Amino acid sequence: MAEQSKAVVLFSGGLDSSTCLAIARAEGFSPHALAVRYGQRHAFELKAAESVATALGVPLRIVDIDLRAIGGSALTSEINVPKDGPLGADAGIPVTYVPARNTVMLALALGAAEVLGASDIYIGVNAIDYSGYPDCRPEFIAAFESLANVATAAGAARGVRFRIHAPLQSLTKAQIIQRGTELAVPYQLTHSCYDPDISGGACGHCDSCRLRAQGFRDAGVVDPTRYARGVTT
Amino acid sequence: MAEQSKAVVLFSGGLDSSTCLAIARAEGFSPHALAVRYGQRHAFELKAAESVATALGVPLRIVDIDLRAIGGSALTSEINVPKDGPLGADAGIPVTYVPARNTVMLALALGAAEVLGASDIYIGVNAIDYSGYPDCRPEFIAAFESLANVATAAGAARGVRFRIHAPLQSLTKAQIIQRGTELAVPYQLTHSCYDPDISGGACGHCDSCRLRAQGFRDAGVVDPTRYARGVTT
Repeated sequence: MAEQSKAVVLFSGGLDSSTCLAIARAEGFSPHALAVRYGQRHAFELKAAESVATALGVPLRIVDIDLRAIGGSALTSEINVPKDGPLGADAGIPVTYVPARNTVMLALALGAAEVLGASDIYIGVNAIDYSGYPDCRPEFIAAFESLANVATAAGAARGVRFRIHAPLQSLTKAQIIQRGTELAVPYQLTHSCYDPDISGGACGHCDSCRLRAQGFRDAGVVDPTRYARGVTT
Repeated sequence: MAEQSKAVVLFSGGLDSSTCLAIARAEGFSPHALAVRYGQRHAFELKAAESVATALGVPLRIVDIDLRAIGGSALTSEINVPKDGPLGADAGIPVTYVPARNTVMLALALGAAEVLGASDIYIGVNAIDYSGYPDCRPEFIAAFESLANVATAAGAARGVRFRIHAPLQSLTKAQIIQRGTELAVPYQLTHSCYDPDISGGACGHCDSCRLRAQGFRDAGVVDPTRYARGVTT
């Protein structure tokens, strides 16, 4: 049997990236998960990443980066996480947007891919339930793919063509959950909340919790999430 | 007097990026230096960055990122730094190439620019004396500029057009030194060596030392570098 091609999968331990990891494997790759610890205010996301990677039997690399020196986001600084406001594209660009986050993440994935000899990178971005982040759109993914081929020794000198896969791009949250359930993603181990309590329980009221809970309802799949104080419906 | 536009300048404390910082100011911007501490094996580069930024009166932000989890380069892992081999484009891509380094650095600069309200980013890459790095070429810079405009809230929602300036792109090392000397760059404070001794003295034999020393000779400018053990000529 020929050795499977490696793919680097950007991975946070959340619902979307966990599904993305399972999809990369279902598409025939040997996935290598890459998590980025970027000065988050809580570490539950990384613990979830470790649990999910272990459950799926996938190697996990963690890159530390301290984005606090850059600032500008509720996820990395002291701005309050918004609760119970409008959701999705109606809401404009939320304060939880981390400046250039997906550009930084894909750049790191590109470095890891080059070292591993991989030419495929998966990212779980989603343009429908995207909460207004500009770096989740298809034109961003296409622009990064163009960049990757001129940015690397592999692309420039050895003719490797990088592909950035965004398999969740046109799926609703419910469709993501249905696909992941078919692939036996351990959603009970995943973490999505922007503002968990001290035990890691999901707040149930931030944008991320609400999109997730609504997704399970729409998918007709039992939501295994532990919510600390109920969920905004 | 109108407030000067800000520009983010990627800055290592080396000869090229110090010159780039001075050029950004000469071109009318208020420069904000951004240094990236990426798991280097020595910290002299960052000390030089602080000294040069202080001397030029420019604010300096330092972002920490640990690229050792990615590996693959003599600058971030235990591969030996090459000495006294062929130089420049003849040498192919050297082992001191850090996978996707300039992509990561520009991504961080883009995040900083967005937070500062800047739309101009300077990077001191150089395609002539470039030592074979693919992410120093004009096509890389152009691809990143395209990416920046779709990657950010500023570009996507507010129509800001980012410009990536690479003013050293077509200059020889000697021309860089001549321009920097006109702009009073404190070259005695800058650090270029890949493999300094424990006091920070330059080795005089790595690619970076040799390109630098040759540049001073060709420019007819006295080389203020402290070499620990002479220079390969």
